Amino acid sequence: MILASRNAHKLVEVRQILGREDIDLSPGNLGDPVEDDVTFAGNALIKARYVAERTGEAVIADDSGLCVDVLGGSPGVFSARWCGRHGADDENTDLLLGQLNDVGDDLRQAKFVCAAVYVSPGQPDIIATGIMPGRLIRERRGEGGFGYDPIFVPDGYEQTAAELTSREKNSISHRGQAFRALKAEMTRFGIE
Amino acid sequence: MILASRNAHKLVEVRQILGREDIDLSPGNLGDPVEDDVTFAGNALIKARYVAERTGEAVIADDSGLCVDVLGGSPGVFSARWCGRHGADDENTDLLLGQLNDVGDDLRQAKFVCAAVYVSPGQPDIIATGIMPGRLIRERRGEGGFGYDPIFVPDGYEQTAAELTSREKNSISHRGQAFRALKAEMTRFGIE
Repeated sequence: MILASRNAHKLVEVRQILGREDIDLSPGNLGDPVEDDVTFAGNALIKARYVAERTGEAVIADDSGLCVDVLGGSPGVFSARWCGRHGADDENTDLLLGQLNDVGDDLRQAKFVCAAVYVSPGQPDIIATGIMPGRLIRERRGEGGFGYDPIFVPDGYEQTAAELTSREKNSISHRGQAFRALKAEMTRFGIE
Repeated sequence: MILASRNAHKLVEVRQILGREDIDLSPGNLGDPVEDDVTFAGNALIKARYVAERTGEAVIADDSGLCVDVLGGSPGVFSARWCGRHGADDENTDLLLGQLNDVGDDLRQAKFVCAAVYVSPGQPDIIATGIMPGRLIRERRGEGGFGYDPIFVPDGYEQTAAELTSREKNSISHRGQAFRALKAEMTRFGIE
């Protein structure tokens, strides 16, 4: 099975969540689709269909992002390109911290959202979602995770998502919830 | 009367809208309040009260911003510090263009919103608002206006807000509407 992504961090997470090692990233020569939908599920389907059509294989994909209450749900689907270009975790995080510099501790609620999808020729598309609510702090803490994890403290925790072990994080994370729900749906459809 | 602002562009606009020249920017030595409200009216009141308390004068102020539909209303009150710090028009505009790079022409609706306030010792606060709907284009056009004007085309126009004459812009703009409504309310209260 292929995970339609170039993100090695994500591959590690998804393998652990699904409890299987026979998942690989997209072949490097496929190019990338334009993710121009404005929903997580829409962009996950764009990514998965792009790879499925070019490989004929079963493909899983997710699109996820950080939705900040005081920003009306942004960065949302723009999380990975918040600084204006793709794949710059540090710049995205610095920018968000700067934008929220004057926002008080009582208004820093946010949530991570994930839509996970399964696409395979001749099979119905399957979509599942997960949400992890929490709040944003003012400086990075922790070395784990990726993206905005170091500035996000999940509800019920004192540590950031980057300070949790990968097992702890996956047990509560948006991506963990979404892929576990996806796996359950796949099982229900008899898909291995 | 004082306009609680450091923005000379805004002073020119407000003088023209209100049709009076006896308005000046805040004294340069007053410092700046933290605009930590998450509404336009709240931040306009913070700015006006800060200056009124320190000068004893009647003060008008506005807070305005660009609300982009696909960003859930952001940048909104963060418009002037979208790049993470205050007062960088070019960086704010470049960032927004980058964030929306993959967003299609059918999803680029936005609106400028303005809350204008009047604050004076012993007088009731007066608040008025104005909205200018339109859409965002992909590159700057025009030399007039300021802020995001060069990438914003008001509904019913082909030119950007930066291509309109100041008279045309003020006749339809969020700030024009808000300050004209504020003036009408002030007149109703017998304030000159």
